[in-house]
Amino acid sequence: MIDVTLIGTGGMLPLPERWLTSLWVEYKGRACLVDCGEGTQIAINKHGLKLSRLDTLFITHLHADHVSGLAGLLLSLGNCGKTDTLKIYGHIGTADIIRQLCCICPVLPFEIEIHELPLDSIMRFDWNEIIISSMPLKHSIDCLGYSFVLNRKPVFNPQKAKALGVDVKYWKELHAGKSVVMDGQEITQEMVTDEQRKPLKLTYMTDTRYFDDMADFARDSDLLISEGMYGDDEYISKMLEKGHMVFSQSAKLALESASALLWLTHYSPALVNPNDYKESVQKIFADTVISRDGEKITLK
Amino acid sequence: MIDVTLIGTGGMLPLPERWLTSLWVEYKGRACLVDCGEGTQIAINKHGLKLSRLDTLFITHLHADHVSGLAGLLLSLGNCGKTDTLKIYGHIGTADIIRQLCCICPVLPFEIEIHELPLDSIMRFDWNEIIISSMPLKHSIDCLGYSFVLNRKPVFNPQKAKALGVDVKYWKELHAGKSVVMDGQEITQEMVTDEQRKPLKLTYMTDTRYFDDMADFARDSDLLISEGMYGDDEYISKMLEKGHMVFSQSAKLALESASALLWLTHYSPALVNPNDYKESVQKIFADTVISRDGEKITLK
Repeated sequence: MIDVTLIGTGGMLPLPERWLTSLWVEYKGRACLVDCGEGTQIAINKHGLKLSRLDTLFITHLHADHVSGLAGLLLSLGNCGKTDTLKIYGHIGTADIIRQLCCICPVLPFEIEIHELPLDSIMRFDWNEIIISSMPLKHSIDCLGYSFVLNRKPVFNPQKAKALGVDVKYWKELHAGKSVVMDGQEITQEMVTDEQRKPLKLTYMTDTRYFDDMADFARDSDLLISEGMYGDDEYISKMLEKGHMVFSQSAKLALESASALLWLTHYSPALVNPNDYKESVQKIFADTVISRDGEKITLK
Repeated sequence: MIDVTLIGTGGMLPLPERWLTSLWVEYKGRACLVDCGEGTQIAINKHGLKLSRLDTLFITHLHADHVSGLAGLLLSLGNCGKTDTLKIYGHIGTADIIRQLCCICPVLPFEIEIHELPLDSIMRFDWNEIIISSMPLKHSIDCLGYSFVLNRKPVFNPQKAKALGVDVKYWKELHAGKSVVMDGQEITQEMVTDEQRKPLKLTYMTDTRYFDDMADFARDSDLLISEGMYGDDEYISKMLEKGHMVFSQSAKLALESASALLWLTHYSPALVNPNDYKESVQKIFADTVISRDGEKITLK
């Protein structure tokens, strides 16, 4: 079970009633954060999330609305007793900017380990049993999208075990993924479990204009979080120029990638009522949520 | 008339219900800001203040809770159409930190002019007809306090003009501070005005421990804004060590400096209900306000 909270839904500027877009992902008591704009740490607090669980930060790109809260977050992590290493992932060039932003928090009680990801290919690595992939997006500056894939253990099927005549005393071991030997015959986990379950997948894509490879990257997401600066299609060409999308483009992406659920976010400050476009966007992709700050789901 | 708004009242960390301490001062349609922590621009927006009026920023010191909102503020100033120069005043060493913080807002539609103030003496300069003084404080790092003094024009007294037989047609010029010649005799402004009025004075002192010269700097303030990390005197020695004050010390400062009004601010995140100490601090200095975010006054 992966707990997902969208910290805020704003783009460009933090507003009194709309925090900047960033994502909190929690799994087995550990948490990571994607992006950290001005006020993100306040919103984390407001949403009742535990900063002490945060061990990793993923940065999409280096525009202020995605990183300007970094120094404050680091100081707050120190204040809440963090002493183990904080990992930060971002594209090539991120480390230098982080070092500059940290000029106002030069002394922290924990180490920071910065990992720079390539801008010309998809990169895969692990966080907390989850496989993270980073993909270069197409924004006005270098930018990465991220996906989170959790492979799930096959489920023990008591009917199959019974059919093979496996004694109940062996079930626990089989359930834990071990093989057992019964009357000289090896019983493997595969023999008593159902087929491999589909992995859980979360994809996060902002900021970017629409481009063809996005759907492949987001393929089969249980939750696709994607940007929509405006709800009205009249902004498509302006947004293309600025490296952004409108609601309908994200809805088409959800459809093309066969995602189960779409959360829209990263609204322009000029978009006062994103819900005005709910009906029209749901005609393209029915399972679209016009996200609000603090939108939550448990993927399972 | 000087309009004063305390943007927030927090110290160290921005909280969901308490913005970080910073001050908005507005006079004749122009505004300046003292300090800019994370979220300050959001609070400015929330309090209904017009960012487009801001032309000058004063920085007390370079702890994150006083400058971490700078990059976001600069971008928002650009977004609201600012093209004229923004002046920033801070102590020696401020320019280098500002340059680093601006790595995430490298292109702005206006110039920034940084003025570095000495750390060993009081410095005087003008902002918008107001005389600003900066004074080195005693914090854990270099820090400046600021005072704002507005000298007021003498008030034209019609009785005095009548007594001198000055024709009404000359009153407008005299009122505007000019001398006139009537029947060969020079009538100066001094001859038809009341005595010089007391200047308006606002003093802002945070972050600092208590020290003797503070009262002289704050002498005769119409409004003294001073820090109080805690309401309880049991924190005095701990705060002395950290370069801070408690409520009672600021109240004594208000008394010693013969200030008319004291606003307390910069509360520790651990101080949940500053109002619990209202009665005790008002026993020391009756005109103490336990400030709330957005506290406002017009000095006149």
